[in-house]
Amino acid sequence: MTIEVDYRFPPGVDGEQQAKIIAIGQTAGTWDARFAHREEVLRSHLGKVVKGLMETDGSSTVTISFPEANVENDISSLLTMIFGKYSMAGAAKVIAVRLPEDYGRRPQFGITGIREQLGIFDRPLIMAIFKPALGLSAEDHGAILREVASAGLDIIKDDEILGDLEVAPTLKRLEACRQVLDEVKQQTGRTVLYAVNLTGAADQLIEKAHLLVKEGANALLLNVLTYGFSVLDALAANPEINVPIFVHPAFAGALCAAPNHGMAYSVVLGTLMAHSGADAVLYPAHYGSLPFEAAEEAKIRDNLRSRNVFPVPSAGIHPGIVPQALADYGQDVILNAGTGIMDHPDGPAAGVKAFFEALERLNQGKSFALETVPDGFLRRALEKWGKV
Amino acid sequence: MTIEVDYRFPPGVDGEQQAKIIAIGQTAGTWDARFAHREEVLRSHLGKVVKGLMETDGSSTVTISFPEANVENDISSLLTMIFGKYSMAGAAKVIAVRLPEDYGRRPQFGITGIREQLGIFDRPLIMAIFKPALGLSAEDHGAILREVASAGLDIIKDDEILGDLEVAPTLKRLEACRQVLDEVKQQTGRTVLYAVNLTGAADQLIEKAHLLVKEGANALLLNVLTYGFSVLDALAANPEINVPIFVHPAFAGALCAAPNHGMAYSVVLGTLMAHSGADAVLYPAHYGSLPFEAAEEAKIRDNLRSRNVFPVPSAGIHPGIVPQALADYGQDVILNAGTGIMDHPDGPAAGVKAFFEALERLNQGKSFALETVPDGFLRRALEKWGKV
Repeated sequence: MTIEVDYRFPPGVDGEQQAKIIAIGQTAGTWDARFAHREEVLRSHLGKVVKGLMETDGSSTVTISFPEANVENDISSLLTMIFGKYSMAGAAKVIAVRLPEDYGRRPQFGITGIREQLGIFDRPLIMAIFKPALGLSAEDHGAILREVASAGLDIIKDDEILGDLEVAPTLKRLEACRQVLDEVKQQTGRTVLYAVNLTGAADQLIEKAHLLVKEGANALLLNVLTYGFSVLDALAANPEINVPIFVHPAFAGALCAAPNHGMAYSVVLGTLMAHSGADAVLYPAHYGSLPFEAAEEAKIRDNLRSRNVFPVPSAGIHPGIVPQALADYGQDVILNAGTGIMDHPDGPAAGVKAFFEALERLNQGKSFALETVPDGFLRRALEKWGKV
Repeated sequence: MTIEVDYRFPPGVDGEQQAKIIAIGQTAGTWDARFAHREEVLRSHLGKVVKGLMETDGSSTVTISFPEANVENDISSLLTMIFGKYSMAGAAKVIAVRLPEDYGRRPQFGITGIREQLGIFDRPLIMAIFKPALGLSAEDHGAILREVASAGLDIIKDDEILGDLEVAPTLKRLEACRQVLDEVKQQTGRTVLYAVNLTGAADQLIEKAHLLVKEGANALLLNVLTYGFSVLDALAANPEINVPIFVHPAFAGALCAAPNHGMAYSVVLGTLMAHSGADAVLYPAHYGSLPFEAAEEAKIRDNLRSRNVFPVPSAGIHPGIVPQALADYGQDVILNAGTGIMDHPDGPAAGVKAFFEALERLNQGKSFALETVPDGFLRRALEKWGKV
């Protein structure tokens, strides 16, 4: 099997020439007569230019196929091969990567597994983020969780910038929240997931993941782009770390936001994540607070779902987006709101309830026009945040 | 102590407004009366806009200071804070990061330690890369090393794209090369370093590093940008992994090459590396084969050397660049050549000798003009590759 990569070059770059440089320079390289005895093997490692396409505006796209034998069935070695040294060679953007079905990992839980854990099969899942992000104590986290979990929330996660800080150490947060999760389970039979943010040097991070799971963590969160795909690989492979891993896109813009450099969002947050071992992947919704293209979001959604990874459109999510989100996603989506739940005018519990009111209203086929929505949590949310 | 970050925005972006968004959005965020009891602590985590500068072309640069208490004294949490979610917010480039002296790590070996290991204090070090990159057997590696090490080479490294592949498993490569290193030591008393490329899932990678060192590896190589700063952090902290760590810049262009997005090369390959635990850092030389600005290279050099990290300008290095390189660097530099050694017309040993001839010739104050250079390895290199 081979790995196919599409590189796009802006006008003024000779795509054909660059294609050859990539196919050779990112694989075996050149050799001379001294290596005649290895000729066949050397050749087997070379990349191939599959096709080139010149656009009318002078930009070009080339497809290179790479032997799977050059890499280690993981994302880290893949990135080194397809865009390692070459990323420094000038303007070029990786716009698509096609991997063999069995490349990398599939999620251990993913859409079906997370649904089974929660026992919810017929609706989107509602997820919140602890806010404010820094400065709350572990007890504050527990108190917030009590509010939103009692209101029916499915999943909560740490803010991605909250590490293992003195103000609220990771294990203390788990301890305070675990107690609430147990209460909710006892009182209602419902499972609520809390994705605890994993930080630290790789060895300590993995050890922390072990310890957290042992102490009752039922989900984990990783900033894979700042900690490393090799760290996610280790977590996902570990049979003792048997809880869903939520992956956050922090830092993705540094790789993906430029028009003619780096990699497409749909590659990094879609294709690579789908083969990384992640169970659920967060990324910006195109109608949210971050600038994002609908087409990229759709590709991410499809790339993730093709491998049972839960898509989690995020950033600026509030109850008013529910009709649009369900039109885009159907049921298999996790709606993840930070301030869209925590800053509801009537408090976080109201924020959660507003989402469920929105789901209910949509199911009933009713309008979201403000004048038609009766007084209540949804209406209060619509008054504050509007709809899409 | 605080962490200061300079963000540059292109014309059309309201830098002042963005500065506020970063200072608040990348730290504690907003809160309301419900958190009055935590007001003081929440405030202590906020970032501050230190200054803003509007350029005549409409671009702007703002400086934000972040509390050190928000992060974990490592590069991964730093990246999440300074450019995590915000990297997806639009056009912005991180052009400088100023860290407290004690932030992160210093190299365990660095310039002084690597020099002590080699017993060489008064000249640049000469480093080669195994080529071709993929397809050679472990025995081939041993045979190549014998040639170049006997010719006086100081350091050799795996190509960054060579992982733990069936064609030449990492431990087999070490085994074949370790034998040669021992022979050279016995015959000449000289230590030659072989930086073995570390790959795999984070836990296995760290375990492999242990095993390699136990089996006699005297240096390691890491593609930190594709494997993760948290992996380097773990390796550098480990007292049993007591050999220099060479860090490769593969994938840096994906983060740094765009004009208005991502981070400056001098930040990623300079500042962050200098605080990461790396002992020696590779990056493109501005007169090499990759497009690179002299000013960025100078900043990288100075950032690295300010913390005793060995600078390793690379890519397209050959004996003809020696006068320019020494003018830029003086003695404290590792000159790292791939094809510039391996593809010398008279073979790899001649490639190494050509570098030493070049150093000698420069010491004697002699010209590198081709007509003045006597027949020999240096002249043959100059004939093939020219000079800067």
